[in-house]
Amino acid sequence: MSDTLLRPIRWLGGAEEGQIWMLDQRRLPLEAKELLIADHRGVADAIRDMAIRGAPAIGLAAAMGVVLGVREALGKPEGIWDEEVKAVLERLRSTRVTAVNLEWALRRMESAYRQHRGQSRTALLQNLLSEALAIQEEDTAANRTMGELGADLLKPGSRVLTHCNAGALATSAYGTALGVIRCGHARGLVSRVFVDETRPYLQGARLTAWELQRDGILVTLITDSMAGYFMKQGSIDCVIVGSDRIARNGDVANKIGTYSLAVLAKAHQIPFYVAAPTSTIDLETPTGDQIPIEQRSPREVTHIGSTVIAPEGIEVSHPAFDVTPAALVSAIITERGIAMPPGVDTIRSLME
Amino acid sequence: MSDTLLRPIRWLGGAEEGQIWMLDQRRLPLEAKELLIADHRGVADAIRDMAIRGAPAIGLAAAMGVVLGVREALGKPEGIWDEEVKAVLERLRSTRVTAVNLEWALRRMESAYRQHRGQSRTALLQNLLSEALAIQEEDTAANRTMGELGADLLKPGSRVLTHCNAGALATSAYGTALGVIRCGHARGLVSRVFVDETRPYLQGARLTAWELQRDGILVTLITDSMAGYFMKQGSIDCVIVGSDRIARNGDVANKIGTYSLAVLAKAHQIPFYVAAPTSTIDLETPTGDQIPIEQRSPREVTHIGSTVIAPEGIEVSHPAFDVTPAALVSAIITERGIAMPPGVDTIRSLME
Repeated sequence: MSDTLLRPIRWLGGAEEGQIWMLDQRRLPLEAKELLIADHRGVADAIRDMAIRGAPAIGLAAAMGVVLGVREALGKPEGIWDEEVKAVLERLRSTRVTAVNLEWALRRMESAYRQHRGQSRTALLQNLLSEALAIQEEDTAANRTMGELGADLLKPGSRVLTHCNAGALATSAYGTALGVIRCGHARGLVSRVFVDETRPYLQGARLTAWELQRDGILVTLITDSMAGYFMKQGSIDCVIVGSDRIARNGDVANKIGTYSLAVLAKAHQIPFYVAAPTSTIDLETPTGDQIPIEQRSPREVTHIGSTVIAPEGIEVSHPAFDVTPAALVSAIITERGIAMPPGVDTIRSLME
Repeated sequence: MSDTLLRPIRWLGGAEEGQIWMLDQRRLPLEAKELLIADHRGVADAIRDMAIRGAPAIGLAAAMGVVLGVREALGKPEGIWDEEVKAVLERLRSTRVTAVNLEWALRRMESAYRQHRGQSRTALLQNLLSEALAIQEEDTAANRTMGELGADLLKPGSRVLTHCNAGALATSAYGTALGVIRCGHARGLVSRVFVDETRPYLQGARLTAWELQRDGILVTLITDSMAGYFMKQGSIDCVIVGSDRIARNGDVANKIGTYSLAVLAKAHQIPFYVAAPTSTIDLETPTGDQIPIEQRSPREVTHIGSTVIAPEGIEVSHPAFDVTPAALVSAIITERGIAMPPGVDTIRSLME
């Protein structure tokens, strides 16, 4: 298993001069370009442009981005530090609207800034970096725990369908949905993973297929439109996906296409599991109806690389996420336990 | 309405020296390359390589291909004509396995060959060409009739979802599912058409969006994975698709992804209509389980134009069609009437 090596984002150096190293995911699997980012605007661009993506990974990137942003602010007159830091937080916050881990990580970093605001530059930056690295370590540990808890739900010989990329690349390491699959595979329970290509951004084909192939797990790549066919054939034993935000009632926002899979899974009586750290659960959002859905560029639908696939001037709709009602979710796997069935009560008892 | 102009396949010239003109659909909408084909092997290649596709269109192409093939055979000693013609039929038949219109058209042409076998070369070829042109005219007329019958099912302001391309490009002209949409639009009943891009071959994005845009019908292009999202939002009033083969019990084979749409439509209580000429109904196939599903090249999934979207060596599954059980189909619209609900009895009474 090479998963311990796959960390899409790292802090290099000390708090006072360090930079963020990132694997640029836009050209994977063909090209593994690396980015070195030394200012918070660069982090905001990397998140918005999807060099880094996946709810826990963008939370971590933003946390490290705050270290850079505060460092930039400290180079200015002390009187405007707070204002500058506020602008940094806002710039990072506005990059993506659906994933709540971004907001969650920024709040932790803001709170750390307030707590250590009166210290020396060195101590303040060191404490902020420690907080970002704590987020990173906790996320990896959470993924390992989810992997173990989730694998308990798998039957021997499981053929698992997953959508998008909820893997190492979407987190600090190991992955959420792919963490469960990795742990299940290590226990000999997973025989094959069906990977939806996940149009329009193709995270399944480009990232998940690549991650699993790298780990030596048997993969069958399919288009999103084939999932129903394989379910009907009896080729899928369960579905496992990640999440970008889970509402208080257990409704799950995740990559567009997840809802369709959940409806199909229900129709075929196939268990539908969501694996996500508790940082993805947003108790301030009562139901899925209140989760903002990011609308992305039509160009991501009409262009694939340099190839144009639609007539010029055609109207395109591109919601990047959808919401799956809790009633269609068999279980939500978190590092604090499993909400099964998901709902206000089971979610609340996890979060207490 | 410019639909009367859009004919993807035509016979140019007389029976004895004429050729088949085809619009090469592989590069649409970017490039409208034209093909002139003078021998039956060229027709077989065009069907297999999807220069021409769509069940009724490949039936028509094959019928015209038989004229060419018989003409080639007549250039050889009379003693081997029948054997040569048999090889021609077999070569055309083996190009695609799911669409039954191909088999249906070849049987008609074989029967015409047998009937006129003893005539002069000129008369025989003329009679074969007449049969092929009759198939063409009947198909266009059937589409017009289906359009009228199907439009009766539409409510004012309908927002229609379609999948793949069941348009003029898939037939002799006008289209099956798109024929219903065109007629409904002409009657002022269709307000918008949601077009699934239809991975992997992108017939929706490349062909259907282009056809409808050309007719001035409002289109929203979406990925296949977004259909459930828009159904849940209440943005879709009905689904209309074509078919490649309909079994005796009303089970419908159509482009991969159709079955998933039918399950989603049922879950959202949205009518799901299939429009197809009776040449698509195969009474010799009892149920959908007996319909052969063509498996196409993994390359069509892993490559889009010149862009590679998956890691090298990844295993891919590419069933090109799926089967939707009759129970998920609200009505099958044919030129002889509507089977509603589809089933052994309603299908039989249409075919008598």
